[in-house]
Formats: sequence, C-alpha cells, structure tokens
Amino acid sequence: MNIAVMGAGAVGTSVVELAEGYGHTVTALADSRTGVVDPTGLDTAAVLERKRSEGIVGDDDPEDVLEGDYDVLVEATPTTLGDAQPGFGNLERALQRDRHVVLANKGPVAERYSDVRALERESAGEVYFEATVGGAMPVLSTIADFGPEKITAARGVLNGTANFVLSRMAAEGLGYEHVLAEAQDLGVAEADPTFDVEGTDAALKCVIVANVLAQGDREYTLEDATVEGIKDVPASALELAHEDGRTIRLIGEVSDGDVRVGPRLVPDQGALAVTGTRNIVQLETTHAGRLNISGRGAGGDETATAVLADVDRLTD
Amino acid sequence: MNIAVMGAGAVGTSVVELAEGYGHTVTALADSRTGVVDPTGLDTAAVLERKRSEGIVGDDDPEDVLEGDYDVLVEATPTTLGDAQPGFGNLERALQRDRHVVLANKGPVAERYSDVRALERESAGEVYFEATVGGAMPVLSTIADFGPEKITAARGVLNGTANFVLSRMAAEGLGYEHVLAEAQDLGVAEADPTFDVEGTDAALKCVIVANVLAQGDREYTLEDATVEGIKDVPASALELAHEDGRTIRLIGEVSDGDVRVGPRLVPDQGALAVTGTRNIVQLETTHAGRLNISGRGAGGDETATAVLADVDRLTD
Repeated sequence: MNIAVMGAGAVGTSVVELAEGYGHTVTALADSRTGVVDPTGLDTAAVLERKRSEGIVGDDDPEDVLEGDYDVLVEATPTTLGDAQPGFGNLERALQRDRHVVLANKGPVAERYSDVRALERESAGEVYFEATVGGAMPVLSTIADFGPEKITAARGVLNGTANFVLSRMAAEGLGYEHVLAEAQDLGVAEADPTFDVEGTDAALKCVIVANVLAQGDREYTLEDATVEGIKDVPASALELAHEDGRTIRLIGEVSDGDVRVGPRLVPDQGALAVTGTRNIVQLETTHAGRLNISGRGAGGDETATAVLADVDRLTD
Repeated sequence: MNIAVMGAGAVGTSVVELAEGYGHTVTALADSRTGVVDPTGLDTAAVLERKRSEGIVGDDDPEDVLEGDYDVLVEATPTTLGDAQPGFGNLERALQRDRHVVLANKGPVAERYSDVRALERESAGEVYFEATVGGAMPVLSTIADFGPEKITAARGVLNGTANFVLSRMAAEGLGYEHVLAEAQDLGVAEADPTFDVEGTDAALKCVIVANVLAQGDREYTLEDATVEGIKDVPASALELAHEDGRTIRLIGEVSDGDVRVGPRLVPDQGALAVTGTRNIVQLETTHAGRLNISGRGAGGDETATAVLADVDRLTD
C-alpha cells in the first residue's frame, strides 16, 4: 500500500520508519507547516533526518500531501476536542477521494463519530482506528472479533502517565506534586500534563469504545462522559487503601450506556493494578467471561504498530 | 453462513446453541455415531434435547453431514495425535469440496500443519483455528494482526487443569494427588487427566503457535516439543518458591525455534501467576514490547465463541 502520513510527531515518524518493514511505501509526509511528496516512495531516512536537523520534513505544502498519490491516509496530527480539526478535515478529504483512513488521532472518532461513519458510507474508502485506544493493545480488533453486541462492558487503565503517578505514589508513599514533577523529569509526563492527569485522554478512549459498542444506535462525545482526574488523590488515601489490600487506579469504564473515568479502589494484586505506564483493558463478554488485555498503551513505535496493523487489515 | 458441525461434545453443542445469535444457520451436526441434516436449518433445541435424552443427535450417518449442504465445517471432534484422525480426514473432505473449515480440534494443525496448508492451497476454502489455542483468548488473531514475523516469542499458561492444581497446591499447601482428586470431584480435571497434567495439551497449543510463527519455513509437531508435566512438583517446592516471592506454573514457551513446556518458577505477583483455571499468553513483539492476553482458556461456550469469531472472519 502507498501511505501518506499527516503529522510528524512521535507516531507519524514511527509509522514512516516502520512502514517499509511491513511491505508498504510512504509516498508523502506532512508536519504542521511543510510537506514532502514522492509518488515513488520517500527517502525516509533523509526526510526524518531533515525533520531532526531543520525541524521541517520538506519544501512542499501539507496541502500537497493531502492531494498526493496514496492508498491510505494515516492521520497522526494532535488530538483536538470539539470539531476535531484539522484531523477531521484531513479524514474528510481522503474519504471524498475514496481513499482509506487510519487514525492515530482520537479526535474524529471521539468527538464526531457519526460524521466519520456518514462520510465513510459515501466513500469507497474505509476508516480504522485501533491505534486510538491503548496503543499496541488489540482492543478494538478484539471487540470486532467477538462482535460489539457480545461485549457487555469494558473497563481499564487507559492512561500511562496517570498510572505511573498513582503507582509510584503508592509504592513510595510520596505526594502527587512530587511524583508528577519526577514524571516530567523522566519524560513520562508532559510539561502540561492536564490532558492525562485530569482524565481527558482516558475518557476520549472510553468514548471511542462506547461508540464502537453502540454500533451507531447512539453517539458519544466527551460531553457524555463523567470524568474525574487524579490531582486530588492524597498519599494518605493510597496508604489507607494499601492497609485494606487495595490500591487506587484511574479507571475508565463503559457499561450500561455510561462512560465514567475516575480514581477507583482496586485489589492490590488484581489485574487492574498494573504498574508504571502499562495499560490494561478488561472486556466482559456474553459467553466467554472476562478477557484481559494489557501492554504498552502509548509510545511512538507501539502506536505505529497498531496503525500498521490497521493498514494490513485494509489489504486482507 | 450455513454451518455443519462434526462433534457433539461441549464445544460442538455450544456452537450449535450459539450460532443463531451470530446470524448463522446450523444445517448439520454429527456425533461419533449418528448425524442429522436439514438444509433449511436444524431445529437445534430438539436435536440437543435428543442428544441429552437418547445420547444421539439423529437418525442419519455422520457421513451424511460431511456430504451435506454447508459453507463452513466446524471440526470439533476430539484431538488425536499422530495422523490426527478423524479430524484431519473431515477437514480434507471439506476443503476438497471447496468449503471452509474452522477447527476446535487441535490435532490437524498441531500434528499435520503442512498437510493442512497444502490442502488449503488447492481449495477455494480457508482454514481458521483460533479456538485451538487458549479458548476465547484472541491469541492467533493478535499474532495475525501484528504479523507473525513481528512476534519474537510467545509464552504462557495454556492449560487450566494444570494451573488449577498448581495454584491450589500453592494456596493450600496440599500435595499433588490430593488436589488432583479434588479437581476431579469438581469436574475441573477429567477422570484420565494425563493429557493435561503431563503437559501434552499445553504442548499442542505451543506447537500450533510455533507453526503459525514459522509461516511454513519449518513444520512443528508434538515430537519437536520438550515436555515435562506437573506430577513431580512437590508441595515443598511451592513452599520454597513462596518464601522467595515466587510460585510455580506450567509454562509453555515458543522462542528461537524451540517449543518447551514444563514447571517454571515465576514471580508470585507477576502476570504469569494466574490462578484457578485461567490462562494467559504473553507475546513479545519487535516494536511494541510485551503484550499480555488472559482469559478463560477452555469451556464449551468460551471455545465456541472463538469458533464463531472465526466463522465471522470468513464472511468479512
């Protein structure tokens, strides 16, 4: 497949680096200001080196990438709320040209799911978005395998930054601010960690799962989610929980039509008490009990792996 | 899809019971002695009631089922070693008629993988076998998603009976024979538990994974596996392990071209230390770290769920 990539952050550049190993050709790449297009295949090493040294990927316009020659558009620009732009517009342009779209960007399927599906129905192209929920963990493909109607609930730890902070607070008996600063030093938390620690990122992933499970019967957006972050979890609460054989994790949950994210007590040694930046998703099924999937929920290569699995799905 | 089911044990009858809920029609069912065929769809409740009350499914011959009208043959006769009959012969007959085959029976893909793939190449039908490894856990579909060449190793707990015995020995400080008898009373272990406690069942699953990962470059059978069971694990070994923060599990492993099954020390609170009849598989990936999948590794409905996911895969 010929792949065009919108977005040259960690995920976009990993897709460019790994695509050849999956038998695909990257024909175009755009960052927020520039683009580079070569219908015969980019010199990916040269393009990524230019991004590193000059901060741009090429001399073309991002617009040229959208208009260029490709089978699949990989949308890896930053997730935005509300109208989900520019990701949604990029998806729209690709579908209108009957091209496939693989999303790493959560915005379009969290904030405008019905619009995405409506555009897909009018297009010969298809939309996949495994990478938007839990990085490399096969959450959406497992739901598709079982059939959404066979999944009665989903819950889990869906944000590595928040989980790192909570599990380190619990292990070391340290306060939130202290551990957050440490996480920022380690590069685990961003300079502005709001999206992660307030639960927004986990909520967007839950909203996407809710949209998939609802199969169009109802549309969910972030507004439908009840969201509480981890900022107000005191170290003393973790100590009390520990004395009772439990700990606290930021748990996202989709059940009975509700989407909720917040700090929850979970068994200390239970499956949900993953440590560090690890993620886990539990799916409750109608006939096969509970299924746990855990792994790295974020990271450039991890998320790119999910993107490229979606690209492969288009060729089946 | 029209489904014919060979084998009326726990898995076969669950497939019959659940198929309609997946939008499929069961047109035929055979047990070891009899068969029942109705091209317009079986009266499944009546057939299953007859199996319960009279011990047979119908007045036809199993042969009539193989010759009947169906799109997919579900092969759920007991797993046998060596020539893998009658499962292999049933698969062969279906493929020669250009029908699809979904296996719950491990024999054909563990003992005669190359023969199965050769028959498939000559047929318009395809062969799927998710149900043969870890019941409802999406192990093979995840390997297919990532691409077999992106998986560097697989290991896990793949036999619920052996895991029940070991985890109960560890929790209660009881000996092997005592716990095994208890497991037999509970129906967790069979009257003849050889297949489970000697590691054969786990080894067959590992051999299947090895065949999938090798992609035809090499064929594995049970003879290629180094297998040790749990009969000789003394309660004292579990006590010693516990003092060191570890426990013992029957671990199957596929790595560097080797297939090994045996009792191994694992961290007491680690992912591999699942309890009861639960199973877990860890996949090591090239770019996405370690992925854990855990769930119910056996059971009629659980395995039937995997079978029906494979049937759905054929309609995509």
